[in-house]
Amino acid sequence: MKVVITGAAGFLGQKLAARLLTGATLMTPLGPRAVEELRLFDVVTPAVPDVSAVEGAQPVVTTQLGDITAGDDLRELLGDSVDLVIHLAAVVSSAAEADLDLGLKVNLDGTRTLLEACRNLPRPPMVIFASSVAVYGGTLPTIVSDQTALTPQSSYGAQKVIGEQLINDFSRRGVIDGRVLRLPTIAVRPGRPNAAASSFASSIIREPLQGETAYLPVPESRSLYLLSPRGVIDNMIHAVSIGGDEFGAWRSVMLPGCTVQVGEMLEALEYVGGSEARARVEPAPDPRIEAIVGSWPARFDHQKARGLGFAGDPDIHSIIKAFMEDDFLSPQ
Amino acid sequence: MKVVITGAAGFLGQKLAARLLTGATLMTPLGPRAVEELRLFDVVTPAVPDVSAVEGAQPVVTTQLGDITAGDDLRELLGDSVDLVIHLAAVVSSAAEADLDLGLKVNLDGTRTLLEACRNLPRPPMVIFASSVAVYGGTLPTIVSDQTALTPQSSYGAQKVIGEQLINDFSRRGVIDGRVLRLPTIAVRPGRPNAAASSFASSIIREPLQGETAYLPVPESRSLYLLSPRGVIDNMIHAVSIGGDEFGAWRSVMLPGCTVQVGEMLEALEYVGGSEARARVEPAPDPRIEAIVGSWPARFDHQKARGLGFAGDPDIHSIIKAFMEDDFLSPQ
Repeated sequence: MKVVITGAAGFLGQKLAARLLTGATLMTPLGPRAVEELRLFDVVTPAVPDVSAVEGAQPVVTTQLGDITAGDDLRELLGDSVDLVIHLAAVVSSAAEADLDLGLKVNLDGTRTLLEACRNLPRPPMVIFASSVAVYGGTLPTIVSDQTALTPQSSYGAQKVIGEQLINDFSRRGVIDGRVLRLPTIAVRPGRPNAAASSFASSIIREPLQGETAYLPVPESRSLYLLSPRGVIDNMIHAVSIGGDEFGAWRSVMLPGCTVQVGEMLEALEYVGGSEARARVEPAPDPRIEAIVGSWPARFDHQKARGLGFAGDPDIHSIIKAFMEDDFLSPQ
Repeated sequence: MKVVITGAAGFLGQKLAARLLTGATLMTPLGPRAVEELRLFDVVTPAVPDVSAVEGAQPVVTTQLGDITAGDDLRELLGDSVDLVIHLAAVVSSAAEADLDLGLKVNLDGTRTLLEACRNLPRPPMVIFASSVAVYGGTLPTIVSDQTALTPQSSYGAQKVIGEQLINDFSRRGVIDGRVLRLPTIAVRPGRPNAAASSFASSIIREPLQGETAYLPVPESRSLYLLSPRGVIDNMIHAVSIGGDEFGAWRSVMLPGCTVQVGEMLEALEYVGGSEARARVEPAPDPRIEAIVGSWPARFDHQKARGLGFAGDPDIHSIIKAFMEDDFLSPQ
């Protein structure tokens, strides 16, 4: 099985690559398949996760530096055949809001160029597209579901809806076999703060536990819908096992998250790291961030996701536990 | 007031042009405004409707042959300033289904290129975008509303959803002042059958009344959601009068239609044209057409549209009456 990851230099891409390198057999609708080849693509050269400690056969890994909007780069990436494309490459929410042209280029043109390249392969590949809770917004019912209209209040959200429409239409036409996973806010991310409007949701746990200050741009009463990075990867691997028909007439699904108030996150932080950790979170209200994050719903009916076998984290404590096990860096 | 119509050579474009030439004052959120200039744009040179019989001042009319995906053509079209753009240019449903590339080019790239050109004007113009009932599809509630998720089952529908997202995002950002009108199936259209999957809905009234044979590709039990061309034009003119804020967080609205079974249309045809007219409709089942048309819902909660002052035709008889008054051509 030949697998491509776009946006492979990002933290989800790196985690996914590591997972595919260590457990290189995937369950597919056609039964278990070994991953023989893994191609990592990004606008900066992706690192190859070190899995030298793992025993057994591993996929051949190649990396490619390229532009997701350049058809030639993508044709080179896909080559003669690909079985699975996991499309993570994107400009994140704050950056897409700050620069409309950049967001349209990467999030719209990039996705379309990739799908056009997939469409020209002799055999339709499976394509997993990372969408986002940011597709929701505006006037919403108290509990949002997969039947709720998508009226996003950010350019990032609009661009993700457009990607979803393309994935669904290309799937309906049979030129790809797509699956769209709408990601909750991902926390706790490893690494440093980034330009995602939701970046703080990771920072307020990660930085204090690692001995640093974090800034909170939204009120403590703000509710978030969270999924751990580990949960995202588990769900992406699970998505490969589901037959396209099981999705019904629409290939998009909101992944199950865990509804948590920021105040509860701070309590959980204190429980794990003590009052000194809690004290490292400084309020820094930012109306621009609050406008974007406040437009994302936090309560979902995730019946469709559960029915398809997707699963979330039970609570904020298990989300922090996953971070401590997978990504915690001891303070220097 | 400077007004641009794209797709001005089409039947709606021509009707709209005629209306703007005869009643050249528009109600706007800022009060009544005279239309001083009307620019007609299409891929074939649009005719200028003959309104020589109308008295009083008329707008200056110019026509431009151009490509809706060519930025240069659109910059020429918009010039230094435009107050109102009515964007009708599109590849219709059957054609977009038959040729994915063409549909993406005109319906996606065309709309985007137009919006980019609008965005570069010194003052954000009002943009009215003709969307379609085809944005709906898949698994739907019995009664569809503006809060229903858009899961279209045609490429045309997907491309219209994408256009809606762009119009809404550009409006939210304040670079245009957009309004999206989702058109029901338009009947009775003047002229000849076209590549719209819904073409038959006009043919089965128009051709028999004009002494010709019409072909019915769907079962008589199929329900349609209809609006007369006159009703579309009335609603487009009305849309200009509504303040952007009145739309709330989303600028899209499904226009009110009239739910009619094909069998009822044939009865109404017989009522107006006699049994000889009814006999001119020949069943010609076409699964491809039925698949597209059958995916469009026919029952709507049009609360939002009514609240904004939009109105539909009361019944099939008034739809046929509008055709007889506006577009009927006596058989030769």
